Amino acid sequence: MRLFDGTFARGGAAAAVSDTAWLHALLEVEAALARAAARTGLVPATAAEAVAEACAAPERLDLATLAERSADAGNPVPPLVRLLTQAVGPQAAVAVHVGATSQDVVDTALVLLARRAVAAIEADLAAAADAAARLAAEHRDDVVMGRTLMQQALPTTAGLKAAGWLAGLDGARDRLRAVVAGLPVQYGGAVGTLAASRGSGVDLRAALAAELGLTTTPVPWATVRLPVADLAGALGAAAGVLATVALDVVLLAQSEVAEAAESGEQRGGSSAMPHKRNPVAAISARACARRAPGLVATLLAAMEQEHERAAGAWHSEWPTLGDLLTSVGSAAAWLADSLGGLRFDVDRMAATVAAAGDPQLAGALADALTPSLGRAAAHDAAAAAVREASVTGLPLTDVVLARGDVDGAALVADSTPDVGEAAAQVDAVLARHVVRAQSAAGPYPSENTPAETRTE
Amino acid sequence: MRLFDGTFARGGAAAAVSDTAWLHALLEVEAALARAAARTGLVPATAAEAVAEACAAPERLDLATLAERSADAGNPVPPLVRLLTQAVGPQAAVAVHVGATSQDVVDTALVLLARRAVAAIEADLAAAADAAARLAAEHRDDVVMGRTLMQQALPTTAGLKAAGWLAGLDGARDRLRAVVAGLPVQYGGAVGTLAASRGSGVDLRAALAAELGLTTTPVPWATVRLPVADLAGALGAAAGVLATVALDVVLLAQSEVAEAAESGEQRGGSSAMPHKRNPVAAISARACARRAPGLVATLLAAMEQEHERAAGAWHSEWPTLGDLLTSVGSAAAWLADSLGGLRFDVDRMAATVAAAGDPQLAGALADALTPSLGRAAAHDAAAAAVREASVTGLPLTDVVLARGDVDGAALVADSTPDVGEAAAQVDAVLARHVVRAQSAAGPYPSENTPAETRTE
Amino acid sequence: MRLFDGTFARGGAAAAVSDTAWLHALLEVEAALARAAARTGLVPATAAEAVAEACAAPERLDLATLAERSADAGNPVPPLVRLLTQAVGPQAAVAVHVGATSQDVVDTALVLLARRAVAAIEADLAAAADAAARLAAEHRDDVVMGRTLMQQALPTTAGLKAAGWLAGLDGARDRLRAVVAGLPVQYGGAVGTLAASRGSGVDLRAALAAELGLTTTPVPWATVRLPVADLAGALGAAAGVLATVALDVVLLAQSEVAEAAESGEQRGGSSAMPHKRNPVAAISARACARRAPGLVATLLAAMEQEHERAAGAWHSEWPTLGDLLTSVGSAAAWLADSLGGLRFDVDRMAATVAAAGDPQLAGALADALTPSLGRAAAHDAAAAAVREASVTGLPLTDVVLARGDVDGAALVADSTPDVGEAAAQVDAVLARHVVRAQSAAGPYPSENTPAETRTE
Amino acid sequence: MRLFDGTFARGGAAAAVSDTAWLHALLEVEAALARAAARTGLVPATAAEAVAEACAAPERLDLATLAERSADAGNPVPPLVRLLTQAVGPQAAVAVHVGATSQDVVDTALVLLARRAVAAIEADLAAAADAAARLAAEHRDDVVMGRTLMQQALPTTAGLKAAGWLAGLDGARDRLRAVVAGLPVQYGGAVGTLAASRGSGVDLRAALAAELGLTTTPVPWATVRLPVADLAGALGAAAGVLATVALDVVLLAQSEVAEAAESGEQRGGSSAMPHKRNPVAAISARACARRAPGLVATLLAAMEQEHERAAGAWHSEWPTLGDLLTSVGSAAAWLADSLGGLRFDVDRMAATVAAAGDPQLAGALADALTPSLGRAAAHDAAAAAVREASVTGLPLTDVVLARGDVDGAALVADSTPDVGEAAAQVDAVLARHVVRAQSAAGPYPSENTPAETRTE
Repeated sequence: MRLFDGTFARGGAAAAVSDTAWLHALLEVEAALARAAARTGLVPATAAEAVAEACAAPERLDLATLAERSADAGNPVPPLVRLLTQAVGPQAAVAVHVGATSQDVVDTALVLLARRAVAAIEADLAAAADAAARLAAEHRDDVVMGRTLMQQALPTTAGLKAAGWLAGLDGARDRLRAVVAGLPVQYGGAVGTLAASRGSGVDLRAALAAELGLTTTPVPWATVRLPVADLAGALGAAAGVLATVALDVVLLAQSEVAEAAESGEQRGGSSAMPHKRNPVAAISARACARRAPGLVATLLAAMEQEHERAAGAWHSEWPTLGDLLTSVGSAAAWLADSLGGLRFDVDRMAATVAAAGDPQLAGALADALTPSLGRAAAHDAAAAAVREASVTGLPLTDVVLARGDVDGAALVADSTPDVGEAAAQVDAVLARHVVRAQSAAGPYPSENTPAETRTE
Repeated sequence: MRLFDGTFARGGAAAAVSDTAWLHALLEVEAALARAAARTGLVPATAAEAVAEACAAPERLDLATLAERSADAGNPVPPLVRLLTQAVGPQAAVAVHVGATSQDVVDTALVLLARRAVAAIEADLAAAADAAARLAAEHRDDVVMGRTLMQQALPTTAGLKAAGWLAGLDGARDRLRAVVAGLPVQYGGAVGTLAASRGSGVDLRAALAAELGLTTTPVPWATVRLPVADLAGALGAAAGVLATVALDVVLLAQSEVAEAAESGEQRGGSSAMPHKRNPVAAISARACARRAPGLVATLLAAMEQEHERAAGAWHSEWPTLGDLLTSVGSAAAWLADSLGGLRFDVDRMAATVAAAGDPQLAGALADALTPSLGRAAAHDAAAAAVREASVTGLPLTDVVLARGDVDGAALVADSTPDVGEAAAQVDAVLARHVVRAQSAAGPYPSENTPAETRTE
Repeated sequence: MRLFDGTFARGGAAAAVSDTAWLHALLEVEAALARAAARTGLVPATAAEAVAEACAAPERLDLATLAERSADAGNPVPPLVRLLTQAVGPQAAVAVHVGATSQDVVDTALVLLARRAVAAIEADLAAAADAAARLAAEHRDDVVMGRTLMQQALPTTAGLKAAGWLAGLDGARDRLRAVVAGLPVQYGGAVGTLAASRGSGVDLRAALAAELGLTTTPVPWATVRLPVADLAGALGAAAGVLATVALDVVLLAQSEVAEAAESGEQRGGSSAMPHKRNPVAAISARACARRAPGLVATLLAAMEQEHERAAGAWHSEWPTLGDLLTSVGSAAAWLADSLGGLRFDVDRMAATVAAAGDPQLAGALADALTPSLGRAAAHDAAAAAVREASVTGLPLTDVVLARGDVDGAALVADSTPDVGEAAAQVDAVLARHVVRAQSAAGPYPSENTPAETRTE
Repeated sequence: MRLFDGTFARGGAAAAVSDTAWLHALLEVEAALARAAARTGLVPATAAEAVAEACAAPERLDLATLAERSADAGNPVPPLVRLLTQAVGPQAAVAVHVGATSQDVVDTALVLLARRAVAAIEADLAAAADAAARLAAEHRDDVVMGRTLMQQALPTTAGLKAAGWLAGLDGARDRLRAVVAGLPVQYGGAVGTLAASRGSGVDLRAALAAELGLTTTPVPWATVRLPVADLAGALGAAAGVLATVALDVVLLAQSEVAEAAESGEQRGGSSAMPHKRNPVAAISARACARRAPGLVATLLAAMEQEHERAAGAWHSEWPTLGDLLTSVGSAAAWLADSLGGLRFDVDRMAATVAAAGDPQLAGALADALTPSLGRAAAHDAAAAAVREASVTGLPLTDVVLARGDVDGAALVADSTPDVGEAAAQVDAVLARHVVRAQSAAGPYPSENTPAETRTE
């Protein structure tokens, strides 16, 4: 009975951080560790392969016992190592968990999970970005009212709106990609000295990183949690972009605005009101994205960790990062859905702009008066004209035409929608999006690229 | 495969907010609504009973469809109402979802879930409080070093430490209990006017509250979320108390302090270090409790809701409040476990106090010098004596005895541990705990007490 | 140069938590402590009065030295006590800081500051509530479109909207008032044992509480921070209410909605657009209120405190609680301003409702079809009718009148705005507001009422 | 009277975000905008210089009016533009605020403020890092007990501890530096179209960026707040590193551990206890750093912004980012102070390791038994030996020597502290620190380097 998963565990990220995914990642690390130890000459290759084989068959482990003992141990690795050791038998036991401590395995597994979840998020962000790009291209020159502080201001284009979304979505992707590319392995042994690695710890760390396509570090990051902070920061930023785009969709879909609508036959019905059609995808994207800031705060607060391993703060990262990845992933999936089916109502947009010609005319009047009156007095005079129009009920056009101190006819002519350099800006964003897609044609930060070394 | 549930979904709260619990609570509200409508004379009693019967048999509903359509609808109620209506047949359909909107059912169900989860949390908090009370009573007069800013300061008693924990735990319970007692029903129809309740909406709201043992309100709270804020605040406060007590346990169990230890044969072992015994219960309590502040912030930020129903903020409450209840519940369960088996090492505590006699002697010296030198100079003189002792390697006792300006012998005699009114304070806290237990002997805010009316 | 104080330090709360206010509060506590010690018989009354006199003349203290040494000491009390002792001379020195530790004075001062700041907040909340009450009464029966998920739904009244705001504002006040009434004194000496109070510590604590009109506690709350959590929770709740009301104002003032406007000649102009008039007060209220959730989270996270005094978490409370009080106070001041000048546009509201008759008609159609088709099919049929109207461009009225299966004329007649029990609900909220004002006619939680004892 | 500034507004960041700094930054942007407009050919160079001159003389503006009107306008730019226009006279008015909207100026000023505050933070982080480097080098081979979950585990070195701190501090600097290097100008006019820039808006944006040494963007980021999120993320990460290092200092300075102490004659005294010496700098660093997560959450939550300019969320950034910069800056200043005077007690560290030889011996016993018993049984046997030693009161050495199944003498010999590859890891971190310092010998992200273009 997963009543809410369709809303809050949408997209691929949720599965990537499930308990099953955790188990697989822990075993993947243990397998890679065995192989790296063999490569480093610390254990026989046959023993390593036996371990790797056992890790590939989690169904043969006693998972009930594992779950039960994980809580007692404070983390799942001690019982897992015990089960693995039993599984491989005495010959290969030497290749199990070589030189490692629980945190080495948990942290490296966390990094693997995060990389996979981010890949899923990235796919949905890419779909959302592509949809935004299509909207930007298609509506490059379609005017729409620009609104500041929730008030109608001056015209802009739907293309520029969508280009702003696109820039944000591609920016969020850049940040996630950079973080994932730098995710490091964790390996230091009980207190970080590599004392149980028989002099080959630094090499083994590099080999393990290479096995898993992660970066390595000069020292463990057991209680200096910059990799977690990096993930938190980039995911928080992505959530913010998703939320602001989703909010724009909700606002464009308002009954009184009605300049855009989500498609979707099935969706958005009301139990009490058959006529309603809610932008469910954008609403759900907001709901999911709003969970992020608090989760990010928890992860940042958890960076304060004691000595060589923290007594609680470390553990609090697991469900919190899992929820953060799931929430941002769900928001991305919903937004891809929303933008993928979004339709602008070009006629309605144009009509709103036309109906609001007055504001722009007022601005033009202020500009025209500035040379003679100075900016401030000109601004006041324009505001007075607006008030006069409002009080008398005359169109502002008439009030302006009636003035002797400006060329009213020219002003009225000029007060047709002016969207400045909107189109050029749309083109610039689209060009980058295309270049970006091409340069990223190579694989997503591969899980098997050679490890690079990195300061933190 | 529930790898982490033993750690992060401990105690009864997690089950109380599961998807299954949600389904049952939604149906419970629909059933109560049907009965209340009958009681108010809006629908025939037989129809209401047919609805209530259908609600009692969720297994007969098409739950796969329900889950699938919930995401499309934005919440589970529209498809649930459809299924219920089908289930009861045309005759009784009139008694389904009378005058209600989705939010009425979701919010009231949320309140029911929260009440049950808090009851589970309360049970674990009570167990933790009782354990603290036992410790306070048993160690009422056992000295232990008091520590401020992580430095040894002056002696106190283990009883007073435990009494502080007890006061906090009972205080947290008081706050939760007060919040639960005031939890209100939600009922207002599509936009809060009760327009679909045929003139009996206010009465029906009161009847529904009575059915469910909730309070009623003069207006709906659809976008004025004080009940959610109340839960968030009380749960956040409880988490803070749990965290600070758990931190004390961790600090008392530090190798270098070793004045208390958790019992538990199985627990706290290390994969790399056979000699280690970690206070796993207290560590896990901290891990769970630390999730709360961020979740509370999310709920408070979600209070900003649009018009008659929010487009996203409302939805974000469901998983967030669920996680908050689960986290605080897990922390409470862990702390009950930790304190339930906590053993103070009375000899070690006394030895530490004895070894640190010097500090108190320094304070006594400062007091003795104050009449002649003034407080500031006396303080400086005492500090100088401590430095002299440290530099020369002499016990401070000797340095003090050697002074001519004070009665050194009396000071040394006086520098035995003085724990002031520790015992009286312990007794006061214990007395309240007993009175509290007796006055609370009646049922926990019943689910079936008559509804009271309440401002919010 | 206070560029932003008009926006972010509005109302009386900011001044109540300034550094000057802190100094006065610290001295007020020292003065009260001296008098309480005299009352308890621990020091001569003349000495106590000398101390109280010195505390009343902060300008005679060397404040530059105080500020400089506060940072070195970790808090301002050690240098303050030194200055006070110098100021009163050797005779009265015995009455300075009797039996106290720095935290006793800082915590009690914090409580005094919070009480004063909350009184200022309360005054602005009361003004906002009164304005909401006026709006509710004046527009009790004026229809306005109800909106859910940012879509037009069914009609409600402006009175009911304002009554919802009023219930929230009064609810927030109730919560703040309850918290302030329970704020406790802090007094325990160095580690909480009262060892330096010569056997009269518990009595002295009660006397100090009585001097300051605070409650007392059975044990110190030095590291069990429920009073801070209580303040945080109630302030966070108040911020949420302020934010949701301010958001409603912003949404009603949207150009496309234009159903309400803030008054204010000077305000809301734009540097680029002379025609714009922004609801600056509501916008600023949102800006201030949105700071609260993060600050609450910081205070809750700071509840995890070590042993008898925390090494950092305690200190982090001071600026954080100050900022929280200032932010909520500013939001309250802005909202009082916004609602105080808010004007509903009754004609526009009615026109919008009239123009949207179709939705309600669709609902009526669904209801009318339910007996024959069942609820689900009736709902579908009504939705189909809406689509048909939309596709053909016919009014829904015509589509409904053309149907043979319902009494179309009756439905159309019925589809005039029905606001149900809106008026009765408005009256209920207003009645409570009046009763509340009368019962609160007595003084705001007095600073000089006798202390009560309280669990935490 | 700045009672708390020494604690919470330490270092240079506080001054960099003061109201005075804001005014200067706003004027700096207006001056640069005038010059950029001249360079782009939009206004005469003489007019631009007149504007720049007026901007350089803020004392000639009517600042009281400015402050008063800022709140009414919703931000300080409208009154500032009015004052500037008056100041430069009608001739040069054409060069004031060319094509800009308030948000262009506020956002660009915010970026300038942030860059300066981060430079101040960076200086203190660098000082802290250099101090950590000195400690790492000096104590490269000095053993200290490693502690996990607050329990003594196995030996490590003080050098490796300090190297971990160093890696974190340098990592935090890298992140801040990268963010500052990418900070963009904001320029788009009223709704982002550049309509008021007479066709030269994109060029003017680039010219403005060049004037200020900022990057430019293809579209405005008025409601897509990635630059703010970037700052928030990097500052939150820095705070986390500062907090974890400060916590280590506090824990090493604990009375019972006493392996490190802050120097400082004046500091850390207690009002009640003359013997105490608290690590005030580290404690204060923690207090300041702990404010960050909540502030980051507020900034991330504020990313959800409406249409072309947000009604509240945008404004909430100003005080929040200011407080975040101030808090992180204060924490950095305190930690530089703490580490700059930190002294390890090498003898005490060694003695603690020696006294705890048993644990390592237990590990060695487990390893020795593994070939014969298997890992799990060996682990249990070692734990049993520890228990036996504890129960009988015999040294574990004797218990091990008494066993027949292992070479006890060899094990005992081996149980001398083994710190593995600690030294090599220290050297690696130090080498990077040196390389980093050299490569960064060039100027800190200059305020006058040519602007680069950047996706977001």
